[in-house]
Amino acid sequence: MHRHAVHELLERVRRGEISPAAAADELARLPFVAGTDVLVDTHRALRTGEAEAVYCPGKTPEQAAAAFAALAGSGGPVLATRAGAEHVAAITAAVPGTVAHPKARMVVLPGPVAQLGTVAVVGAGTSDLPVAEEAAVTAEVLGAKVERLADVGVAGLHRLLARLEELRRADVVIAVAGMEGALPSVLAGLVAAPVVAVPTSIGYGASFGGLAPLLAMLNACAPGVAVVNIDNGFGAAVVAVRVLRRAAARQAP
Amino acid sequence: MHRHAVHELLERVRRGEISPAAAADELARLPFVAGTDVLVDTHRALRTGEAEAVYCPGKTPEQAAAAFAALAGSGGPVLATRAGAEHVAAITAAVPGTVAHPKARMVVLPGPVAQLGTVAVVGAGTSDLPVAEEAAVTAEVLGAKVERLADVGVAGLHRLLARLEELRRADVVIAVAGMEGALPSVLAGLVAAPVVAVPTSIGYGASFGGLAPLLAMLNACAPGVAVVNIDNGFGAAVVAVRVLRRAAARQAP
Amino acid sequence: MHRHAVHELLERVRRGEISPAAAADELARLPFVAGTDVLVDTHRALRTGEAEAVYCPGKTPEQAAAAFAALAGSGGPVLATRAGAEHVAAITAAVPGTVAHPKARMVVLPGPVAQLGTVAVVGAGTSDLPVAEEAAVTAEVLGAKVERLADVGVAGLHRLLARLEELRRADVVIAVAGMEGALPSVLAGLVAAPVVAVPTSIGYGASFGGLAPLLAMLNACAPGVAVVNIDNGFGAAVVAVRVLRRAAARQAP
Amino acid sequence: MHRHAVHELLERVRRGEISPAAAADELARLPFVAGTDVLVDTHRALRTGEAEAVYCPGKTPEQAAAAFAALAGSGGPVLATRAGAEHVAAITAAVPGTVAHPKARMVVLPGPVAQLGTVAVVGAGTSDLPVAEEAAVTAEVLGAKVERLADVGVAGLHRLLARLEELRRADVVIAVAGMEGALPSVLAGLVAAPVVAVPTSIGYGASFGGLAPLLAMLNACAPGVAVVNIDNGFGAAVVAVRVLRRAAARQAP
Amino acid sequence: MHRHAVHELLERVRRGEISPAAAADELARLPFVAGTDVLVDTHRALRTGEAEAVYCPGKTPEQAAAAFAALAGSGGPVLATRAGAEHVAAITAAVPGTVAHPKARMVVLPGPVAQLGTVAVVGAGTSDLPVAEEAAVTAEVLGAKVERLADVGVAGLHRLLARLEELRRADVVIAVAGMEGALPSVLAGLVAAPVVAVPTSIGYGASFGGLAPLLAMLNACAPGVAVVNIDNGFGAAVVAVRVLRRAAARQAP
Amino acid sequence: MHRHAVHELLERVRRGEISPAAAADELARLPFVAGTDVLVDTHRALRTGEAEAVYCPGKTPEQAAAAFAALAGSGGPVLATRAGAEHVAAITAAVPGTVAHPKARMVVLPGPVAQLGTVAVVGAGTSDLPVAEEAAVTAEVLGAKVERLADVGVAGLHRLLARLEELRRADVVIAVAGMEGALPSVLAGLVAAPVVAVPTSIGYGASFGGLAPLLAMLNACAPGVAVVNIDNGFGAAVVAVRVLRRAAARQAP
Amino acid sequence: MHRHAVHELLERVRRGEISPAAAADELARLPFVAGTDVLVDTHRALRTGEAEAVYCPGKTPEQAAAAFAALAGSGGPVLATRAGAEHVAAITAAVPGTVAHPKARMVVLPGPVAQLGTVAVVGAGTSDLPVAEEAAVTAEVLGAKVERLADVGVAGLHRLLARLEELRRADVVIAVAGMEGALPSVLAGLVAAPVVAVPTSIGYGASFGGLAPLLAMLNACAPGVAVVNIDNGFGAAVVAVRVLRRAAARQAP
Amino acid sequence: MHRHAVHELLERVRRGEISPAAAADELARLPFVAGTDVLVDTHRALRTGEAEAVYCPGKTPEQAAAAFAALAGSGGPVLATRAGAEHVAAITAAVPGTVAHPKARMVVLPGPVAQLGTVAVVGAGTSDLPVAEEAAVTAEVLGAKVERLADVGVAGLHRLLARLEELRRADVVIAVAGMEGALPSVLAGLVAAPVVAVPTSIGYGASFGGLAPLLAMLNACAPGVAVVNIDNGFGAAVVAVRVLRRAAARQAP
Repeated sequence: MHRHAVHELLERVRRGEISPAAAADELARLPFVAGTDVLVDTHRALRTGEAEAVYCPGKTPEQAAAAFAALAGSGGPVLATRAGAEHVAAITAAVPGTVAHPKARMVVLPGPVAQLGTVAVVGAGTSDLPVAEEAAVTAEVLGAKVERLADVGVAGLHRLLARLEELRRADVVIAVAGMEGALPSVLAGLVAAPVVAVPTSIGYGASFGGLAPLLAMLNACAPGVAVVNIDNGFGAAVVAVRVLRRAAARQAP
Repeated sequence: MHRHAVHELLERVRRGEISPAAAADELARLPFVAGTDVLVDTHRALRTGEAEAVYCPGKTPEQAAAAFAALAGSGGPVLATRAGAEHVAAITAAVPGTVAHPKARMVVLPGPVAQLGTVAVVGAGTSDLPVAEEAAVTAEVLGAKVERLADVGVAGLHRLLARLEELRRADVVIAVAGMEGALPSVLAGLVAAPVVAVPTSIGYGASFGGLAPLLAMLNACAPGVAVVNIDNGFGAAVVAVRVLRRAAARQAP
Repeated sequence: MHRHAVHELLERVRRGEISPAAAADELARLPFVAGTDVLVDTHRALRTGEAEAVYCPGKTPEQAAAAFAALAGSGGPVLATRAGAEHVAAITAAVPGTVAHPKARMVVLPGPVAQLGTVAVVGAGTSDLPVAEEAAVTAEVLGAKVERLADVGVAGLHRLLARLEELRRADVVIAVAGMEGALPSVLAGLVAAPVVAVPTSIGYGASFGGLAPLLAMLNACAPGVAVVNIDNGFGAAVVAVRVLRRAAARQAP
Repeated sequence: MHRHAVHELLERVRRGEISPAAAADELARLPFVAGTDVLVDTHRALRTGEAEAVYCPGKTPEQAAAAFAALAGSGGPVLATRAGAEHVAAITAAVPGTVAHPKARMVVLPGPVAQLGTVAVVGAGTSDLPVAEEAAVTAEVLGAKVERLADVGVAGLHRLLARLEELRRADVVIAVAGMEGALPSVLAGLVAAPVVAVPTSIGYGASFGGLAPLLAMLNACAPGVAVVNIDNGFGAAVVAVRVLRRAAARQAP
Repeated sequence: MHRHAVHELLERVRRGEISPAAAADELARLPFVAGTDVLVDTHRALRTGEAEAVYCPGKTPEQAAAAFAALAGSGGPVLATRAGAEHVAAITAAVPGTVAHPKARMVVLPGPVAQLGTVAVVGAGTSDLPVAEEAAVTAEVLGAKVERLADVGVAGLHRLLARLEELRRADVVIAVAGMEGALPSVLAGLVAAPVVAVPTSIGYGASFGGLAPLLAMLNACAPGVAVVNIDNGFGAAVVAVRVLRRAAARQAP
Repeated sequence: MHRHAVHELLERVRRGEISPAAAADELARLPFVAGTDVLVDTHRALRTGEAEAVYCPGKTPEQAAAAFAALAGSGGPVLATRAGAEHVAAITAAVPGTVAHPKARMVVLPGPVAQLGTVAVVGAGTSDLPVAEEAAVTAEVLGAKVERLADVGVAGLHRLLARLEELRRADVVIAVAGMEGALPSVLAGLVAAPVVAVPTSIGYGASFGGLAPLLAMLNACAPGVAVVNIDNGFGAAVVAVRVLRRAAARQAP
Repeated sequence: MHRHAVHELLERVRRGEISPAAAADELARLPFVAGTDVLVDTHRALRTGEAEAVYCPGKTPEQAAAAFAALAGSGGPVLATRAGAEHVAAITAAVPGTVAHPKARMVVLPGPVAQLGTVAVVGAGTSDLPVAEEAAVTAEVLGAKVERLADVGVAGLHRLLARLEELRRADVVIAVAGMEGALPSVLAGLVAAPVVAVPTSIGYGASFGGLAPLLAMLNACAPGVAVVNIDNGFGAAVVAVRVLRRAAARQAP
Repeated sequence: MHRHAVHELLERVRRGEISPAAAADELARLPFVAGTDVLVDTHRALRTGEAEAVYCPGKTPEQAAAAFAALAGSGGPVLATRAGAEHVAAITAAVPGTVAHPKARMVVLPGPVAQLGTVAVVGAGTSDLPVAEEAAVTAEVLGAKVERLADVGVAGLHRLLARLEELRRADVVIAVAGMEGALPSVLAGLVAAPVVAVPTSIGYGASFGGLAPLLAMLNACAPGVAVVNIDNGFGAAVVAVRVLRRAAARQAP
């Protein structure tokens, strides 16, 4: 519509129905018309790559399904995160072709994406699994190859070291950890890839809902670590995929 | 410049040198050109009313004076806040016509502003004076009439009640208080004007640098209170002046 | 009653039954009698404008309905906020003429109010809707015209910019945002009206129940922002209405 | 028993059955025997005055009733605080002569206490009532006369001022307030008695579970205020009663 | 003045120059005139007992001396707290008859006060001495007898227990402690008097400027403890003196 | 397996099938193979002593039972902590030979352990009992003799002092306390053994979920105290058992 | 050395001087020998790319210069961060070939690095400049091309939008902002590259030393943002360079 | 003295000069006499082992020297911690035989102590050295053998693993770390000894003065870790020595 209005105006300039000066004024009077159009386009392109996501908590199953269905027409992949059993049921019923990932608490409608590099998703403990799976499934849906390394926390260092080769092959490492949140520091000292750290709310007492690993990760003694919000596996995957896409963009002839 | 480029493009459309479709593409390629221009204009107009301000902490006297001088050409009033003695000296030496307000820790270059309504600046204690003065001087420079009511804290309620008439005449009340920050609650129960609350870092121990009055003011039991940052007399005055300007705008024939 | 006692006393002075000195003593002995009366009157007038509100959490449906019914006799509008389904049922049953606003979690008994200017209520995300609606409904009940702009967060800047004209027409802008709470900063740089910021508890992890947007809003880099308590849509509307009333007062001949 | 053991030992010394040196060794070997006895006695005496209390949360009704019954034999009054309906039922069934105080969430077994002076229990809002009642009932059970002043918050100052005479007659004032917690500051500027402040967890958002009024009360600008834990009406009453007892002790011939 | 105006008005009523109704209106129009007078009187009386205090931090020596001198004419005792060497010099030079208390960081101008009961000021460690002395000197200046018990922390329990008799004789106990702040809990289990607890900022690391003992004292497991702000020895003494005055008032025939 | 691969490689060196240089390269290519093996062995040995533990919260009864059963084959003792009734049922059904400890919220499968020294587990209040029992049962399962001292808080000092002999005989003291957390400070001043402090989340208001005793214990004025996480009775017992094992190791001929 | 020892051992196996089994034992006895060597090598290679850094605060000029000189022999670039004037002087004097970057508070010894892609370093305000420069200089020294965009905060949105093209060309965006920290959210909605957010301690009051922008950035409503520690420009640059290196690695034939 | 008084009393009982009942009364009247004596003796013995310490901050050099000199007569070792250059000078001048440890910021007067086992003091970074040295020197002065492992943080894991043998030989491990505080978790997974963790205030931004490593250590995922206050090297050493003494006590025939 906006773009149409600009065309119309330019046509009128061409036909001499309006002077260039008056047309410029009109353009200025409609603030951000052109710019907005550009933004929308770009934004949509960007989003196509990144997939649309529905965050389920606080939504009724019906609301979540409606939001999911609305996004399903965009052509790209669609994700629902933190989906309870009833959200899963409602979305699956409403949108054909979806896949449920119970461990990740997600529902996914796959869509066409570019094939990207590798993300290693490393979890410190079994309790971190849902967050790690949220990261892994998100990254896969967005085109990444994913290596999962579960239960390789720093208290059992040998399990971590035994997987070192795999870790070093990854283009990005997502480190998911609750408790003391030491995993990203250790990883960033072992690999050359960027480490995206996800603190989890796993723990009790002086964990204060994930504050302890969050602060630890922000203070990682090894440079090369950047941190997302507590339990935000989805966000970590989006950062990782953005990294992979830059690499893919450069790789293309 | 941007506006010029748009004119040029439209001229080329008029001259038939470029098709409307191609011109529309070009407009889209230069994101925010038109919009940006509009923004800049609007923004400047807005700023003229609000005065430009130099926040001195962390700046050397020379840096503060240079920033102040750069703004001094804009035609409107210019303010320097949290100015130490050496900042005052440097700015006064660099820009003719400035006025120092030591109690408010400010330097001011007056400029033409509309005559606005009345702000009552109420301070709970003598130690809050610098913050209250920062609010009062800022409001005056921006065109407001200011009533100052110092040392009318809630522990000496009679002093507050004795000034009630003046308080009720004000269009906006700025309440400045450290310690337990109770003043805005009491005021909002006594007057019908909006109360802009400024917590101060006055206090010690469990004041935690102004956290105590900040939380108290956010939890004011009387509706009608909105809060700015700790010690932010300048910000409170800008909010108050924005309120007065709306009233002035409506009042104009 | 109090006023009656004063009259009685003065009559006795007039009839010579008590000396002026003794009467002055008696007046002094009854502290705040006169003053209190004044206060009560003023206060009531003030309240009539502002509507009485029942905050439902922690109250049984019966208690909420009883409180609502008690206020319903005052002649002005009455509001119930944060009303669950059972509160709504109880209040609606108890007081005829009420209107339920489920999206705002409110029940309203309309009353006569002055016609005031315009408040723009801007919500950053769909999850902020209940708080934004609480602000919008409250403002409407108190006499304001309300423009609702939903889902115009800073991550989709074009949606915000596309509504700029409407925003600039408003006398006050209420900005409701959770997550990083950036909306008020962006708005205060775009409009000249005062911006009342409402942080919401929407979010998780390092949002810490709304602490993140609260701190962000208090630190808004654009002056002109004042903040109310987390999720306090009602409070923001009362501040906005106080602003509008000052403008209306000035406008009157 | 301990005291008996000491007597026995001393008897054996008198009878020459044990040398003083050996007896001294034995005394030293039983650390705190004598001292402990003293402590126990004093302590019991002290407790008799203060009543024994059962804090119900986290206890099953059976556990609470058993604890209450165990204390009921001590001769003094016994209190159960934060008692849910099922705690009340269990305790009432288990111990004859108890009285339930639903508004205070308490069950009480009265006992003989000295007649003490007056405590004014002032509540800022209706939501603070359970905490205020906990303070009032505890003080009454322990021998105080109690004046209740409900709903006299600082936003409606006239209601507070209208009760000033009563407030000034009290020997101790207990001020119960949530939200911004301004009540104790205002009270301490109006009366000469010590003010015991009780912050409540009433509120939401930036109240942070009562942190806001707690900090406000600790920073009260008027000296004469001391603070107990959030929602701790029982603790405030015990402090108040200790004050009254000292006065009573001095008053006795 | 105010009182005079009331007299005048009443005279006019008596002389029939103004009707009682009109006079009542006039009284109502001057809000708080009578009430305010009463308040002022009461307040001053109250203050006379409590002494006026100058809090020195943030004041220049000249400002502190000027404030002190202004209060010195009131007839009652005057205190300056947290006075640095230069404050002491300036005040001593400005006001004859003052006494410096370096350990308490105070300057005192003694004044007539009633003879009151006994306060035990108990300090947990040598570093708490300045705060304990501030409490002790303030209490003495206001008429209390003071027993000082220094360095009787809970890690050396025997030192505390050895002074038990003295502690039990006190009418109020002020417990000053940094570190873990355990002293008031222990004391409240040993004595029957009210315990006013003063957390100090002594400590480092996880003391967080006195937060640790503050929280500990608010959570004292023994009832009978009320808490003032961190390092607020002055405030604790005022609470204690208010307690003693009630006892003295009751004792008087 | 790893060890086998190394053997194989070395055999090939011995047989001349691979040069030492190539073998060294291969060793280097398999990072941490040898080292890892060592670690694994050591680690397992270590774990045998310490028992494996299943933390139940966030696990379904089935998951907890499966994890428990998996560990049950290791030969050492196995523990489940924070087990609800349904966890207990599931584990007991799945693994023969387990013992439920309801007060400690634990299920235990005993296993062979060395006989160690004595741990005194001291609880400040009855509400701390579940945490204290978790510590006591864990220590017993791991081979320690345990002395339980319940309800010996600092407000009733005589109960603590009466048990001093027992306390002084212990090799390690575990002090469990909520509220103000003063117990470890008092204990560390009375005994020569290391004191492991466990803050509990018992309390309300300004306890902030156990923050108050946590900070108090970290600031213990008596040296000799080290602290574990809030409510972490299991962790305290493991620290204590590590202390006892060092003593046992030294004691062995 | 370690590698040498392994060679030696293997040679002895080859010569039949030691059996494979004994050699395996010996390998196992020296834990981590081989693995450690690998780690050291990798680590050094990794570090060569990342440059060694000396963090100056808390070091005397001599200590900083000595540390810098020690690293200078490694062949790669060396950085000193947060260097005061005296640190700069000492390092420059001690190591030839260094370059001082006063705005970034850094000293740099350049070294050979691979040519990498582009980092846009965006600063919200002039006060954020030192942190932004630390990021920019670090990235440049490590081989990145750097685009600097200063003073493009969200309150002056037009300045940000006017630079959109440049921003969209960057492979990584580093967003540096204090105050409300809204910049990364806005940027992540405008560009497709990963956004590394650096909160700064610029601000006062409720900024709480950078906590406000830190929390805001962690809660960014636009996915694609990861956060480093407050003021950690160096760390952000290392993350960015790790991203660029992956792209470069993929790009290589 | 006290003991003498008891003897005297018992003698009088033996001589029949006082009845057992009267003597029992007298014993009870002197609370804690016997008990106190015991306490004092024990306490002194305890202290002899642990050394007396003077904490210098907040003390003038003269005060520190006086406190040190007073303790120097006790016969055992004496320590001064956090000693500035001027404290060192004053103490050294005042007490002959002292030794300064500048890296540990300590002054020590050695004294006779039992020969104990081994403490490994592990520091994560060079900046942690002063705290690590405070722990090491304190432990040595109290009789422990100390192994120092500096700069073995988790980002350079190989340095830690290379020292594993030494670590495993230690009877107690003290782990000193700032930043993310991951070291104790890693260590507790590698060794069987108890790990005493010392968070340090090294770091900036989101370290919040050591809060980050403190929380991390309290949440260590490996059991076997207990934590002391931030920067409290002295306290960690005292805990470690208490552990060693228990082992020594058991070892003795």
